[in-house]
Amino acid sequence: MKPITSALVAQTITPRPADSHKGTYGRLLLIGGNQNFGGAIIMAATAAVYSGAGLVTVATDPENFTSLHAQLPEAMVVDYTDLTFVKQQLKSATVIVIGPGLGTDDLAKKLLTTVLTELTATQRLVIDGSAITLLATHSQPLPAGSIVVTPHQMEWQRLSGLAIVDQTPTANLAAAQQLGVTAVVKSHQTTIYQGISSWQNIAGTPAMATGGMGDTLAGMVGGFSAQFTDFTKAILSAVYVHSQIADDLAQKKYVVLPHQITPLIPQYLHRYSQK
Amino acid sequence: MKPITSALVAQTITPRPADSHKGTYGRLLLIGGNQNFGGAIIMAATAAVYSGAGLVTVATDPENFTSLHAQLPEAMVVDYTDLTFVKQQLKSATVIVIGPGLGTDDLAKKLLTTVLTELTATQRLVIDGSAITLLATHSQPLPAGSIVVTPHQMEWQRLSGLAIVDQTPTANLAAAQQLGVTAVVKSHQTTIYQGISSWQNIAGTPAMATGGMGDTLAGMVGGFSAQFTDFTKAILSAVYVHSQIADDLAQKKYVVLPHQITPLIPQYLHRYSQK
Amino acid sequence: MKPITSALVAQTITPRPADSHKGTYGRLLLIGGNQNFGGAIIMAATAAVYSGAGLVTVATDPENFTSLHAQLPEAMVVDYTDLTFVKQQLKSATVIVIGPGLGTDDLAKKLLTTVLTELTATQRLVIDGSAITLLATHSQPLPAGSIVVTPHQMEWQRLSGLAIVDQTPTANLAAAQQLGVTAVVKSHQTTIYQGISSWQNIAGTPAMATGGMGDTLAGMVGGFSAQFTDFTKAILSAVYVHSQIADDLAQKKYVVLPHQITPLIPQYLHRYSQK
Amino acid sequence: MKPITSALVAQTITPRPADSHKGTYGRLLLIGGNQNFGGAIIMAATAAVYSGAGLVTVATDPENFTSLHAQLPEAMVVDYTDLTFVKQQLKSATVIVIGPGLGTDDLAKKLLTTVLTELTATQRLVIDGSAITLLATHSQPLPAGSIVVTPHQMEWQRLSGLAIVDQTPTANLAAAQQLGVTAVVKSHQTTIYQGISSWQNIAGTPAMATGGMGDTLAGMVGGFSAQFTDFTKAILSAVYVHSQIADDLAQKKYVVLPHQITPLIPQYLHRYSQK
Repeated sequence: MKPITSALVAQTITPRPADSHKGTYGRLLLIGGNQNFGGAIIMAATAAVYSGAGLVTVATDPENFTSLHAQLPEAMVVDYTDLTFVKQQLKSATVIVIGPGLGTDDLAKKLLTTVLTELTATQRLVIDGSAITLLATHSQPLPAGSIVVTPHQMEWQRLSGLAIVDQTPTANLAAAQQLGVTAVVKSHQTTIYQGISSWQNIAGTPAMATGGMGDTLAGMVGGFSAQFTDFTKAILSAVYVHSQIADDLAQKKYVVLPHQITPLIPQYLHRYSQK
Repeated sequence: MKPITSALVAQTITPRPADSHKGTYGRLLLIGGNQNFGGAIIMAATAAVYSGAGLVTVATDPENFTSLHAQLPEAMVVDYTDLTFVKQQLKSATVIVIGPGLGTDDLAKKLLTTVLTELTATQRLVIDGSAITLLATHSQPLPAGSIVVTPHQMEWQRLSGLAIVDQTPTANLAAAQQLGVTAVVKSHQTTIYQGISSWQNIAGTPAMATGGMGDTLAGMVGGFSAQFTDFTKAILSAVYVHSQIADDLAQKKYVVLPHQITPLIPQYLHRYSQK
Repeated sequence: MKPITSALVAQTITPRPADSHKGTYGRLLLIGGNQNFGGAIIMAATAAVYSGAGLVTVATDPENFTSLHAQLPEAMVVDYTDLTFVKQQLKSATVIVIGPGLGTDDLAKKLLTTVLTELTATQRLVIDGSAITLLATHSQPLPAGSIVVTPHQMEWQRLSGLAIVDQTPTANLAAAQQLGVTAVVKSHQTTIYQGISSWQNIAGTPAMATGGMGDTLAGMVGGFSAQFTDFTKAILSAVYVHSQIADDLAQKKYVVLPHQITPLIPQYLHRYSQK
Repeated sequence: MKPITSALVAQTITPRPADSHKGTYGRLLLIGGNQNFGGAIIMAATAAVYSGAGLVTVATDPENFTSLHAQLPEAMVVDYTDLTFVKQQLKSATVIVIGPGLGTDDLAKKLLTTVLTELTATQRLVIDGSAITLLATHSQPLPAGSIVVTPHQMEWQRLSGLAIVDQTPTANLAAAQQLGVTAVVKSHQTTIYQGISSWQNIAGTPAMATGGMGDTLAGMVGGFSAQFTDFTKAILSAVYVHSQIADDLAQKKYVVLPHQITPLIPQYLHRYSQK
């Protein structure tokens, strides 16, 4: 198991070409946020925008439109009960994030099925939160493609069938291979599995142990994937930078709130892009 | 009557273990915020999240969902008129805060009765604001358990039956014992009563004499109780840190707004955890 | 015509007594904010809270509840179409501000009539914005009491009957006397008239020439009046400090937005209280 | 093609006269923001207010009222489905901005037609975003007057009929002349065409390549046009200052969010006004 290094991150986050426009940096569609968990999709979308994704659209419960726009006017919104409109948005997206605050009701199932059915070979997909729980009971195989799942250990247990005590690197790697995904297994020492490779995140702090931290990570994984060519390195870099910012904040804070990480992302990306 | 000391606070707020996750730091349910007093539950919930509670859910009037999420995406929300859903949330909570902005109508009574009926021996309960007024007319005895009430002097008069002039340390201690609670009696020199012990808060400033200050304290008491083993010390530390932050802000401000205290909580906790 | 001096302000803003509570600093009721002008009452209420008023309630269109609470959880809200509830709130108020964003429709007229009818001798009343326009066509004489109006020159023309070119100090003083009010006539050099006295505000900058500046001033006048014994000096101090903060901000800003003045009020009050 | 120089900007942004009031700095009406693109009109309106426009009104979907007021209490709001009310607002406006987040449905068409029909010779008009797409299919000729369009290259293709590869300075100039407008053609090196003159913006950075950047520019063009006498120089200065702020922020940020540019506008204007 290799550590994620700052050299890998610096290699991933390159200076932007002068002759570029918002279309150059991807069209990200985030799907989630029911009436009870609206904050989750807000945190994910905010992280995606601050990560630099070119155009960000949020498909969510209309209950969340106002609270989202009150803090993030940069994102567009779509009523996630309007499946026809969601499908249209899916067609033009280059990256999809599904799960933060999505819940597990019938609509959530339909949305996940729609995404898995419509996914094309050139799109990238991030599956997080309750979408992972739904995926665990999903009978269809996953489509071939660029898919990353971001479970915490209990969600990984549901998805992989591995009890937490059995989540060894070897078993996790085999499970990720069988699912055909990259797996980011979140714990106090997050590990990442893909194909025959595995990585460990050496950054991170218990000050991050608070609700919403995973939603912010999912948004960053989406935002990085929208911009950086190598999907694997985009994922690894998002995991690393997320924890690195938290580590720095934890030098002075007992607990680091997810929404405090987000505004710092552009500064950290800038520093890496200059290396 | 003992002063609350910074030594006691430092003893309470210990460094977080590396191998921990959000579940380690408690599941907090806050109940309050009707259509007129929504700000109260927002201030309490915000204080709870910044205090480091692992997972925070707010049961409130749906009118308040958007304003809450616009400033605190980290919290989850529940419609407090849906008593079945509130009961479910109660089952999984480790700490409950009831009262900020709750009001005293029939729904408020039902919510308080539900909480008092469902409370288990391992849960901690913070009763604040209008829930104290309701409690004063509540015919049932309080369940045995870990209960703290946070009245100001007029609310304490209603609950204890002691006129403000009769609220001597001895009388207060006897009243708290009879009620079977820890009592935080808020005044310009807040005193705390529990069993045979009483404490005085030596921090505090008249710059705190503004609406909402008690809601923020209730949220901190909830957040500290969710994380720190000793319930009494968690309460005392919340009272002390709340006033200490206000004292420091009052070095430069004529009035300290409750929502200005909250973002500083993580820094103060960090400093204590390093002692 | 005397200048308002910083000595007068320092004399007005005294240190808070240690043994005080939120009730010591007044109960302020603000009435205004229809569906089009909701921002006006938000700015006024925010200024009142940051000025240190003990308890602040906002009677407004329910459309504005969420945007108000999203930035000011400290205030309570009341549906201003519920006249019975508004009357109850009037009874417990020590200071009333009516007008910011109120509009001039039938409801606005009813609210103004209610306030003028219910006003007691011990209450203070601030009449601003569209309530001044309404007052100009109001057939009833104003009740005796502590009333201040805060028109700009065009509103003062409507209320006093004096064309702008005729608004000389002598004419203004006579008009204020006849109305039985203190008049704050806002212009690039605001003047204040009361009884046989008149004052001029020597602070102020054209960077303040932007929408909402008067709403913020109305809130400050209300907040100062809720706390400081001498009504006239409270008004004069609010006018002065409002402009003084803007002058300081204008050292670096071409335009000063009303909501940028507000967070600085507690610092300025602190400095004066230490003199 | 001339570069826009800081000398031109300094010449445009002059110190405000002492004896001025909010009416001196224009009445700006912004029209846009449907249920999906509400953030666009929020960003445009915020930029207009921070640019110093005297009075700012936003005609938008009522869904956006709360999120707008939660961050910008200075603006007034109008339901854009109420065409009668919108027409009234048009009459008193000195500058109109139409397009940010407007969409292209029937209501959008009606609003654009209304604006083009009602426009008077003394008003200034900024046409942005989806209003440009609508304009491309608009059969009526544009009214004579002070009109600026702010397309990106694809929108300019639709409006001018020039494919992106054919958008040479000469062709662009001819197209702008034929349309009778000033054209701001946005790209990584934005160019401006009017009459027989053309300019190039030498400021700008790929950190600006993110959704919403054009909405912020449209708001600045509106805000500058409301205050500064020379329409052309107001437009050129807005383009320049927008990019200059972004350039400065990009010294430390990999991506610059539109809403991060806005709060800095008053400082930059101040500096230019002192030169």
